[in-house]
Amino acid sequence: MTVRQRARDLGIPFDGETGPLNAITDVAGVEVGFTTLIDGDGALQIGKGPVRTGVTIIHPRGKDRAFDGVWAGRFSLNGNGEMTGVHWIDEAGAFSGPIAITNTHSVGLAHHGILRWMIAHPRFNAEAQLWMLPVSAETCDEYLNDINGQHVTEAHVLAACDSARPGPVAEGNVGGGTGMVCYEFKGGTGTASRRFTLGDETFTIGVLVQANFGKRHDLSVRGVPVGRHLTDNAVWGTAQNPDVQGSIIGIAITDAPLSAIQLQRVARRMGLGVGRTGSPSEDGSGDIFLAMSTHNDVCEKAGTSEAMLRYTVNAHINPLFLATVEATEEAIINALAAAETMTGQNGHTVHAINHDDLMAVMKQYGR
Amino acid sequence: MTVRQRARDLGIPFDGETGPLNAITDVAGVEVGFTTLIDGDGALQIGKGPVRTGVTIIHPRGKDRAFDGVWAGRFSLNGNGEMTGVHWIDEAGAFSGPIAITNTHSVGLAHHGILRWMIAHPRFNAEAQLWMLPVSAETCDEYLNDINGQHVTEAHVLAACDSARPGPVAEGNVGGGTGMVCYEFKGGTGTASRRFTLGDETFTIGVLVQANFGKRHDLSVRGVPVGRHLTDNAVWGTAQNPDVQGSIIGIAITDAPLSAIQLQRVARRMGLGVGRTGSPSEDGSGDIFLAMSTHNDVCEKAGTSEAMLRYTVNAHINPLFLATVEATEEAIINALAAAETMTGQNGHTVHAINHDDLMAVMKQYGR
Amino acid sequence: MTVRQRARDLGIPFDGETGPLNAITDVAGVEVGFTTLIDGDGALQIGKGPVRTGVTIIHPRGKDRAFDGVWAGRFSLNGNGEMTGVHWIDEAGAFSGPIAITNTHSVGLAHHGILRWMIAHPRFNAEAQLWMLPVSAETCDEYLNDINGQHVTEAHVLAACDSARPGPVAEGNVGGGTGMVCYEFKGGTGTASRRFTLGDETFTIGVLVQANFGKRHDLSVRGVPVGRHLTDNAVWGTAQNPDVQGSIIGIAITDAPLSAIQLQRVARRMGLGVGRTGSPSEDGSGDIFLAMSTHNDVCEKAGTSEAMLRYTVNAHINPLFLATVEATEEAIINALAAAETMTGQNGHTVHAINHDDLMAVMKQYGR
Amino acid sequence: MTVRQRARDLGIPFDGETGPLNAITDVAGVEVGFTTLIDGDGALQIGKGPVRTGVTIIHPRGKDRAFDGVWAGRFSLNGNGEMTGVHWIDEAGAFSGPIAITNTHSVGLAHHGILRWMIAHPRFNAEAQLWMLPVSAETCDEYLNDINGQHVTEAHVLAACDSARPGPVAEGNVGGGTGMVCYEFKGGTGTASRRFTLGDETFTIGVLVQANFGKRHDLSVRGVPVGRHLTDNAVWGTAQNPDVQGSIIGIAITDAPLSAIQLQRVARRMGLGVGRTGSPSEDGSGDIFLAMSTHNDVCEKAGTSEAMLRYTVNAHINPLFLATVEATEEAIINALAAAETMTGQNGHTVHAINHDDLMAVMKQYGR
Repeated sequence: MTVRQRARDLGIPFDGETGPLNAITDVAGVEVGFTTLIDGDGALQIGKGPVRTGVTIIHPRGKDRAFDGVWAGRFSLNGNGEMTGVHWIDEAGAFSGPIAITNTHSVGLAHHGILRWMIAHPRFNAEAQLWMLPVSAETCDEYLNDINGQHVTEAHVLAACDSARPGPVAEGNVGGGTGMVCYEFKGGTGTASRRFTLGDETFTIGVLVQANFGKRHDLSVRGVPVGRHLTDNAVWGTAQNPDVQGSIIGIAITDAPLSAIQLQRVARRMGLGVGRTGSPSEDGSGDIFLAMSTHNDVCEKAGTSEAMLRYTVNAHINPLFLATVEATEEAIINALAAAETMTGQNGHTVHAINHDDLMAVMKQYGR
Repeated sequence: MTVRQRARDLGIPFDGETGPLNAITDVAGVEVGFTTLIDGDGALQIGKGPVRTGVTIIHPRGKDRAFDGVWAGRFSLNGNGEMTGVHWIDEAGAFSGPIAITNTHSVGLAHHGILRWMIAHPRFNAEAQLWMLPVSAETCDEYLNDINGQHVTEAHVLAACDSARPGPVAEGNVGGGTGMVCYEFKGGTGTASRRFTLGDETFTIGVLVQANFGKRHDLSVRGVPVGRHLTDNAVWGTAQNPDVQGSIIGIAITDAPLSAIQLQRVARRMGLGVGRTGSPSEDGSGDIFLAMSTHNDVCEKAGTSEAMLRYTVNAHINPLFLATVEATEEAIINALAAAETMTGQNGHTVHAINHDDLMAVMKQYGR
Repeated sequence: MTVRQRARDLGIPFDGETGPLNAITDVAGVEVGFTTLIDGDGALQIGKGPVRTGVTIIHPRGKDRAFDGVWAGRFSLNGNGEMTGVHWIDEAGAFSGPIAITNTHSVGLAHHGILRWMIAHPRFNAEAQLWMLPVSAETCDEYLNDINGQHVTEAHVLAACDSARPGPVAEGNVGGGTGMVCYEFKGGTGTASRRFTLGDETFTIGVLVQANFGKRHDLSVRGVPVGRHLTDNAVWGTAQNPDVQGSIIGIAITDAPLSAIQLQRVARRMGLGVGRTGSPSEDGSGDIFLAMSTHNDVCEKAGTSEAMLRYTVNAHINPLFLATVEATEEAIINALAAAETMTGQNGHTVHAINHDDLMAVMKQYGR
Repeated sequence: MTVRQRARDLGIPFDGETGPLNAITDVAGVEVGFTTLIDGDGALQIGKGPVRTGVTIIHPRGKDRAFDGVWAGRFSLNGNGEMTGVHWIDEAGAFSGPIAITNTHSVGLAHHGILRWMIAHPRFNAEAQLWMLPVSAETCDEYLNDINGQHVTEAHVLAACDSARPGPVAEGNVGGGTGMVCYEFKGGTGTASRRFTLGDETFTIGVLVQANFGKRHDLSVRGVPVGRHLTDNAVWGTAQNPDVQGSIIGIAITDAPLSAIQLQRVARRMGLGVGRTGSPSEDGSGDIFLAMSTHNDVCEKAGTSEAMLRYTVNAHINPLFLATVEATEEAIINALAAAETMTGQNGHTVHAINHDDLMAVMKQYGR
């Protein structure tokens, strides 16, 4: 697969300084893995395909450290979706284990598969891990994929867990993002990162999105109303698809020192990053965000009853908020830029955004 | 299996008027089904057993009407647990489909199984149900069950969905409640109901719990500190099990006219019902509650853009709140009363509460 | 006072159809009143001035119907601020009485004054209104106003309550907005409205903001990075004012049929409207939003125990969400457009945005 | 005023070990002050009295350290009430300044008065405290007090702030608790404390309540249904007072090391303490709880951008949860035990619980 240019390389003028990879893996320790399932063509037969789906796995501290918790906070801008594990994240501000993102009707199986992987992990200790509460999230690929066939299997989840790596992250039609639609262009997986300074120390935040939301007319790229100019090949708004909008899952990881309650603040800013791309967060969308910090260990069952947590003094936190908004925005545009035209079930085709057309509109608006 | 006496039949003085069955099925339309898995003895081998687990299924409007939504609100008193589907419940105040309760490491598979069952349902319409967000909840049976063997299969979930019936509800060691421990006695499934009057109309609320929480010392039955007297055979507080507490999932359904925000209020009262049995809601417990009303239809995708909802004027709502607290409390005591002594993995035994001993303590305190 | 042109009249290209006044008063029944306090010049003496502050009052159903509730939901995007009354709004999804917006250190007095006004209201009935829980909100005008002098009095609040009128709404340096700063330009009160269609019925949403937030560099007007071009006279970022950001209170009222939980959804969209103007919602900002619907009566203490509520079927709600984002965005830009340069305590001057300069930048970006 | 015996001294069998004073002031640094207003008799004339109200002030770190923040979390079990300051507590998990508790129609004035007091504080620095967000809470004393006369003045608030002291805390008809009614007995201010051990360190939690809630029939004391036996002189349930229930404000302070999110957990347990006294948390009640920890400083505007926070490892936190439930329960019973019969506006009389009658019922139930 040839890789399409990323949004920034096309000349779209983003703000801020990215990490070296402009990816969630710019945060030390983060590993990302994918299982991509593309199989069959033609008429939909539930259980037979065509299949256009997959699983994305993120290990916040890497595979080996799957049992070492991260601090976390979450926000649901519009809750027409699923992200498991949030009761404990709301309660304790922390969790452990890999995060899965897949299609809506495989989110339970992905949860099941994460547990299988953890139980088989060399560091699994049944005495210490009496129970586990995995994070599994989803967006809906029914337009291209035989979603009711539930084609993701345990083996697919285990493979994505095992294949996770640091380094560059594939974007577009990969993993859970395989069959996604974003602003009625082909969407999917996107990532970006920002470096920012709190006081005189520099940190990184990386964002990965599974972008599957938005109506064409609303698409805004760096303030330019792109969706009003690039009106061809929109998939909704037809008799058969009057008002389907999909969802976005956003995962942010930073190495900055943050408490759980501060991570809830970060998660809320991811919603503003989505807003920058034009969507008013529609009813049918599960716009759900999870923010984590790897800076502090999560002390859970230690012999000691107390532990220390380093946090950012709130008066200094604004650069992180801005970085979060920017990285989320860019990750979405990266998903659009990377995704390639795909034909799926019943011959449904979703077209990629044309880079030249996009840049022509940008130019028209002085960008 | 001989059925043990229910708490009320033992002479425990509960308040309020129950429905005819004193069960969640006193609310018209509600159907409950179970798959109970008991297999093997002796030393634990992950994947081989012993197995002491199952699945409980609740259809709020019955199997046939699985796609007809109910209004709902939820509350997490202590979120060390899982209940999927809550993002949309928080957002829309409604959901559809059966509710599953199982063990912690099968909650994803139960989610998956519910979808399988819905996709195969005669009324499933892929054009209308583009995506579904099932409710699957859990408590942890690791003390008796090979939880890491993940013994619940799709077939088990489908069977529980299909077996659901109106009428009397089995209690104790059945379904998801099979391997549960409550106040260090054998716990499991319990149910109760109350009739209450709003204005001059009478309604019913039914509660079903999967009771798996509490330390012996804290057990209080109708205000009597039973746990301080019945100290034999407690399972925690030992070197191997210093402070394990489990969880409680509470499901309430009423036919009273309630809005979504009012159902959140009802869910909070379920926490007070748990509190009446003595627990301070401990750290390791997932004390998560879901309250539903079947009174109003949920208008979702109709051709019409508006619908009417009947609600209770808040100034009249107190009898419902009291009924909720009482039914939750009684459902927990019913779980204790019904459950029978069980030996599970590695020879772990959890003893049932002895009815005579219980009533002797009650008598000592003037009850 | 000459009235400056509104943003739309300057030629800024907003989307959507406004109501006749493009104001919160486009919703039938809404009345708005102001008390504006401008007094003194020169060096600050706490308690003596200079004074640059006031009170804004909104009667959602008009003065006469002050005891008739409205359905409501709220959202705090960043809670560095105050809006009283939210416990009951969260619980019941409704409240009654006027809404006050003033400066941070007068928010308690405004609460007190509302009660005085309600107790003296001809329709006040001490038997029926055993207690009242007013909504009083604030943003901070300390840069221009002797905020610690707490210059707002009961008489000022009563006057604003009494002066409220339907019809055109003053913007800029009026009422609670008198001393406000927005993106380091002079800010203050702004309003806008949108008409939108749910199914085949048309409704109106009106928004009023007290805009006192944002750093110059972040200001975006319809996607154009205006703040990077108009860099003169910024007030923060200096040694004395390193990172002060203020707040925004947003009040939305609609005549569309909505439940309480739907109004929470509307309130969240107001945050997206703020985001469209560029701010990442900074730490020092109290970005708090209240959304109301006047469509249904709120039945509170009636002899009857049940009432009916008309709601919008969620599948049809998107036009309202978009209208909310748009009206919030335009209300903020209207506040900027209307506010005039002001000099306050210690000679601090905050400059109005220059309309010609603004439109020159807009033109440069193809608008 | 003769002081009535406290609940524990009557022989009511509470669990746990109290601090030396069994009061909120057992936590080092805490100071409590009261202004009690009792004036006039006979027929109600709004603005003239009779007056039965007051203000209670709590300085979590003492008067001198009013600008030093505490970590905090809150919970609203039933939000028919007011506690200001919660937006920032939800956002930052911290606040500074004294806490006021007064009557419902004086809560704004108390907010105003706290600011006056802070602005006049020797340590007030207008450059550092650009704005302040006080915590002011209330319960409703309309049955005894001319609440619509709004008799609390700034001077009363300042006096309560200044009069605050460490050491023993007055209970019953004092401060904001002066005119309160609890389970239809005379209620008011109550306090209690518990010592508890996390790991091998011992800490203290102190609770102060303003108890003004509950229907007689529901009153439970240590599990004994006292309210069903002591039925004389109940004030509600009559034609004029069919279903009025009041509220409870609960304030907890501990010296244990806790993060903000952990303090939210503590606040939720205060609701369980209320539940132990029998109430199902009725519709008319504002049952609102604030929990604070003084263990860690709150680093807000320091030159440094990072700070450290010591927290309790969750696996060790249960003794705190139990202590919170117990101290809240005992503080309520202490309010009942301490309050004396009072006659207020229009000759309304609320009777104190009779200690001998209470203990006779306790004995009947084996206590």
